[in-house]
Amino acid sequence: MSSPHSLDAIFKPSSIAVIGASPRRGTIGHELLDNLIRYGFNGMVFPVNPKHKFIKSIKCHPTVSSIVDPVDLAIIIVPKEHVLGVAEECGERGVKGLVIISAGFREVGGEGVKREKALLALKEKYGFRIVGPNCMGVINAEENVRMNATFAPLEPKSGSMAFMTQSGALGVAILLAVARLDLGLSYFVSVGNKLDIAGNDLLEYWDKDENTKIIALYLESFGEPRRFTQLSKKITKRKPIILVKSGTTAAGARAASSHTGHLAGLEIAVDALLHQCGVIRVSTIQEMMDVVLAFSKNPMPRGGRIGVLTNAGGPAIMATDRLVNEDLALATLSDKTQTKLRSFLPEESSVRNPVDMIASAGADEYGRALDIMLADDAVDAVIAIFVPPIMVEPGEVVKKITEATRKYDKPVFSVVMAEEKFYEEIPRRFKDAPPVYRFPESAVRALAAMDRQRKWVEQPEGQVKTFEPEDPSVRGMVKEAVASGGGYMPPDQVNRILASYGFPVCRLRFLPADGDVLQATADVGYPLVLKVFGRNITHKSDIGGVVTGIKNQDMLARAHTDMQEKLERAGVSREVEGFLVQEMAQEGKEVIFGMTTDPKFGPVLMFGMGGKYVEIIKDIAFRVMPVTDIDAREMVRSIKSYPLLEGVRGDERVDIEFIEESIQRLAQMVSDWPEILELDMNPVMVTPDRSACRVVDARIRISSGEELPGR
Amino acid sequence: MSSPHSLDAIFKPSSIAVIGASPRRGTIGHELLDNLIRYGFNGMVFPVNPKHKFIKSIKCHPTVSSIVDPVDLAIIIVPKEHVLGVAEECGERGVKGLVIISAGFREVGGEGVKREKALLALKEKYGFRIVGPNCMGVINAEENVRMNATFAPLEPKSGSMAFMTQSGALGVAILLAVARLDLGLSYFVSVGNKLDIAGNDLLEYWDKDENTKIIALYLESFGEPRRFTQLSKKITKRKPIILVKSGTTAAGARAASSHTGHLAGLEIAVDALLHQCGVIRVSTIQEMMDVVLAFSKNPMPRGGRIGVLTNAGGPAIMATDRLVNEDLALATLSDKTQTKLRSFLPEESSVRNPVDMIASAGADEYGRALDIMLADDAVDAVIAIFVPPIMVEPGEVVKKITEATRKYDKPVFSVVMAEEKFYEEIPRRFKDAPPVYRFPESAVRALAAMDRQRKWVEQPEGQVKTFEPEDPSVRGMVKEAVASGGGYMPPDQVNRILASYGFPVCRLRFLPADGDVLQATADVGYPLVLKVFGRNITHKSDIGGVVTGIKNQDMLARAHTDMQEKLERAGVSREVEGFLVQEMAQEGKEVIFGMTTDPKFGPVLMFGMGGKYVEIIKDIAFRVMPVTDIDAREMVRSIKSYPLLEGVRGDERVDIEFIEESIQRLAQMVSDWPEILELDMNPVMVTPDRSACRVVDARIRISSGEELPGR
Repeated sequence: MSSPHSLDAIFKPSSIAVIGASPRRGTIGHELLDNLIRYGFNGMVFPVNPKHKFIKSIKCHPTVSSIVDPVDLAIIIVPKEHVLGVAEECGERGVKGLVIISAGFREVGGEGVKREKALLALKEKYGFRIVGPNCMGVINAEENVRMNATFAPLEPKSGSMAFMTQSGALGVAILLAVARLDLGLSYFVSVGNKLDIAGNDLLEYWDKDENTKIIALYLESFGEPRRFTQLSKKITKRKPIILVKSGTTAAGARAASSHTGHLAGLEIAVDALLHQCGVIRVSTIQEMMDVVLAFSKNPMPRGGRIGVLTNAGGPAIMATDRLVNEDLALATLSDKTQTKLRSFLPEESSVRNPVDMIASAGADEYGRALDIMLADDAVDAVIAIFVPPIMVEPGEVVKKITEATRKYDKPVFSVVMAEEKFYEEIPRRFKDAPPVYRFPESAVRALAAMDRQRKWVEQPEGQVKTFEPEDPSVRGMVKEAVASGGGYMPPDQVNRILASYGFPVCRLRFLPADGDVLQATADVGYPLVLKVFGRNITHKSDIGGVVTGIKNQDMLARAHTDMQEKLERAGVSREVEGFLVQEMAQEGKEVIFGMTTDPKFGPVLMFGMGGKYVEIIKDIAFRVMPVTDIDAREMVRSIKSYPLLEGVRGDERVDIEFIEESIQRLAQMVSDWPEILELDMNPVMVTPDRSACRVVDARIRISSGEELPGR
Repeated sequence: MSSPHSLDAIFKPSSIAVIGASPRRGTIGHELLDNLIRYGFNGMVFPVNPKHKFIKSIKCHPTVSSIVDPVDLAIIIVPKEHVLGVAEECGERGVKGLVIISAGFREVGGEGVKREKALLALKEKYGFRIVGPNCMGVINAEENVRMNATFAPLEPKSGSMAFMTQSGALGVAILLAVARLDLGLSYFVSVGNKLDIAGNDLLEYWDKDENTKIIALYLESFGEPRRFTQLSKKITKRKPIILVKSGTTAAGARAASSHTGHLAGLEIAVDALLHQCGVIRVSTIQEMMDVVLAFSKNPMPRGGRIGVLTNAGGPAIMATDRLVNEDLALATLSDKTQTKLRSFLPEESSVRNPVDMIASAGADEYGRALDIMLADDAVDAVIAIFVPPIMVEPGEVVKKITEATRKYDKPVFSVVMAEEKFYEEIPRRFKDAPPVYRFPESAVRALAAMDRQRKWVEQPEGQVKTFEPEDPSVRGMVKEAVASGGGYMPPDQVNRILASYGFPVCRLRFLPADGDVLQATADVGYPLVLKVFGRNITHKSDIGGVVTGIKNQDMLARAHTDMQEKLERAGVSREVEGFLVQEMAQEGKEVIFGMTTDPKFGPVLMFGMGGKYVEIIKDIAFRVMPVTDIDAREMVRSIKSYPLLEGVRGDERVDIEFIEESIQRLAQMVSDWPEILELDMNPVMVTPDRSACRVVDARIRISSGEELPGR
């Protein structure tokens, strides 16, 4: 088994063999070879095909072994049955990288799955790296490489955007859009089945690449979400990552599943993860293009106060609406700015933001007004809207906007509503112009994405607090639970584990079904709560399995008898494993903490308000690991009923810091104990005074060892 | 004062005077005249301008009075100072319609407002109709009229879409987009300041117009929302109305306000109104174009079961995701359909919906597969996605899609991801093709709009139930309250009014602050509730102003003393006007009914869940008048916590029909009594048994007569 090569094997080869090259136009074997040559690959290209002596005037080799010079990279376009043989030969020949265009692997099931496994074995034997199979190729547009190893009918411009796609088809759509907007690429990779090289490898590679300033991803499934989290959290502080993730609904996931042979990740976990990593998620390719255009052409904004400049009311209203919906603010222009604007604008114009110069404004007015607005310290970015009046060609306005923009290091977003011809000419005519959009809403969307990136970069990195468990004996307890087949832990053990991690549990006594409840009160004290216990009994209170406010022995005895009768009537007597006598918590706000384990994403933490209303409305927040102090803070504040915790209508504020700390303690606990598959603390009573907060009920499910995800 | 002409005066003139016509290119006076002539207006055109003898080879008149032939319509392009003089002259001359392009009226404030008022006076004196002022003109594209009285540099195709815009600038953007998509217009009207002709007039006119099949509106403010409601409710059953309404946020409304001189309507009321009227609301011009394209080119779907046909996985996943988010369903293809598809598609393809023919599929496969899918009764519409493989020109595929589509009366939405050139050629090359979109999400958006329209048309018209008040004496009570200056009614009167409309009020005694509460219990009975009363005391229970569960005289006396102390401590003693002794309602679910009056929209009814949680989450629904049985039903079911009313976790279902009826009773009451400005029933206890439902607390605010909106 050889150690694997770096990704340079794929992206910076000195020589490329195109195995399955063809002289016939319209075949992949022809188009790909043609692209390599036309794009000007800076190295040797060897067509390989036993049926031809030369292709496109280049000597053609019958096999890769017959090439005398060293071959770094092989592009494989042969029929699926021949891929393994060719790959083996490449391995023997010392080829360091394979881009396998051929389809017919995991995505078709059956034989394809076997074929893919065999390919993986070859990779491990020879150490070569693989892109694909079932992909549309790779591009490295860097000037001293110039490798277009795709069959897309395009010659991408060299630039700063690296793009990865899990769908070849959408890759073509993106390349077309990139060409239309005249954006420059650094890399393009269609990853296909992701047998070897996948998103995370590319993120790592592009992070180090100086040419790459923007990373754009189209994903259908996450391979290793936890590695994605680690990587993207760091990278997004330096380079924006814009992501389209599809397969979000159940039906979409079914389609994604049949397509890629993968289960789609838990959508909640995906959302939490992307948020925690500062990734800009967009929902469509169109939105992605709007956003990358802005990042490509504009400097970062330094704040969220936006100026709007226009010659027409309607579109300015639209822009303002959208700005506010995106949590951006209309800048308040200084008196000086307003006076300057007033000095040359007609009486009917409005010099307060939005600045409406009315229809008579021409190119010069746009230049002057934009200059004045950008000079105002209260303005972080400007949206300049121009609706061409009759017979005015918008080009002059764009030129003046460009001149004014150049003087300042602030982002400007032009919106020009013109005839089709104008847009077609933008890339060639206005190379240095700020980005031009067709509609106000597209400009605002892009601006909002840049502003999210700004906030993310400015936000301090969160800290993961560590908590030492106080009681080392819990280790034995958990191990034993695993050894005895896992499942729900008994309530007294749950209590001990929680207490060990600093959770304020209730004093508690557990009694077997035939135990004497009256004997159990000494450690607990009155008033107390009597609860039934049974691993299969859910919603205890609905069937009379909870009695609160028990003040003395008599009440306890009566409650116990009553409860047994009710459980009998509810038909769950056989599920009863015992009873709990428990300290009664003070009244407070009910909240829920929880954790569930996703096979791929690992532990997913949950926090929310308790109670029936909120259960139905699902007012809850999720985070994946690791959970920092900032995550905990955001989690609490992101639920809709957060004001209830702050106190409304004269209620006191509960101890919110206690909640934040509890989230972090929970994170510590689940990271210490991968054996914990599921955990619920529901409800936890939180009060203004931390010492009165209590975990009222809790469940912990332990792995049997078999379903343990590899954490 | 003359009675006004019909809108034919504007839209079907025999002769037009262009007052302010000019021979100088690039002026509005030239471009508009040029448009009229080039578009081929079917009637006489008279340029009017004292400075010229002829313009564009047509004899030019110095004034409108000097034209010998009758003049039906005058387009006024003169400077603002001359508009009134010209309009007066037109009135004297018997001109029936004016389109006033000139700006400088209400939108500039001050003198402009006066000028606009004077113009209104002239309109009333002479009876002519006005479009504008401050507009960009009108188009009637009907073949035997052919009037393009705008200055937009375009020649719109004749067709079935009528378009109205409150923003001239966005009007140009729309005309450009319409031209790009090669859609046909019936009418285009830029309404400007809406001095006379506004959206409602146009709706009425277009409803009767046979050529118009689709109505599209860009609105910034509602002139008469109640007339809009009446009109659009009927029209949308015959013709879809697609509306972009901007000015939705507070900041956007400020911008809209400075622009149009109007306050933007209450956003909640706008949303309720549009929903109740079956209007399709879109948020951007782009979305509007996606939607009108579908309505223009497709028949209506007969259901919401969608087939997806593709040659690539990625875009099909995207489409499926969006379909599900839009409440559409993936069609389940019959075994027969699947067998037929399997018969000619390669092994690797998927014949379950989405049907993925993989990349090898060509034009013939698209034609055959689409034909088979459309023939399946379980399929109501198909989205056909084509990502061109190398060297395949998508035109052939579109042709085959068109052929298959023609055989069925079902909507088909193509998504083609191709080079720019392809899209540019669509209008000319594929005249009869189903609509072609660039991205799956645009196609789904358009499909979803058509499906909403289908459901709206299929839904029976709601009935407004009428309820007679039982106690005619309430009339006197309300009148007296108005006469004595309005404000909040005393609680016993509130109770009588509510009871009279059939609401289950609590038995109640009101006592002045110094009254003897113990004397008041006879009519009420134990257990009872003691409440403080004071018009300025809100959130009574937070300051100890409510005691429930009083079982006897002793408890009552104690509660009364305690309450007085607490109110003293809360510093509200001086606000106390008395106490209420009230029947104690059974436990139930707390709900809220409410009504507030918007100056323009009239009464806005509200329903929601009660309690603190829901107050913060704002789980409420609104409707404007009239409120039908269907509205009431939808209102209850649209709140998120509706399942609580249905009963969760073993709770019994409350009497939901009681809630629906209460909404309708409330609607009756507020329509009987325009004097009621505001009403709250909060909380109302609803239980499974209607006889136990109770209005626990209620407030009614009566008009002083002055702020009475004209209902």
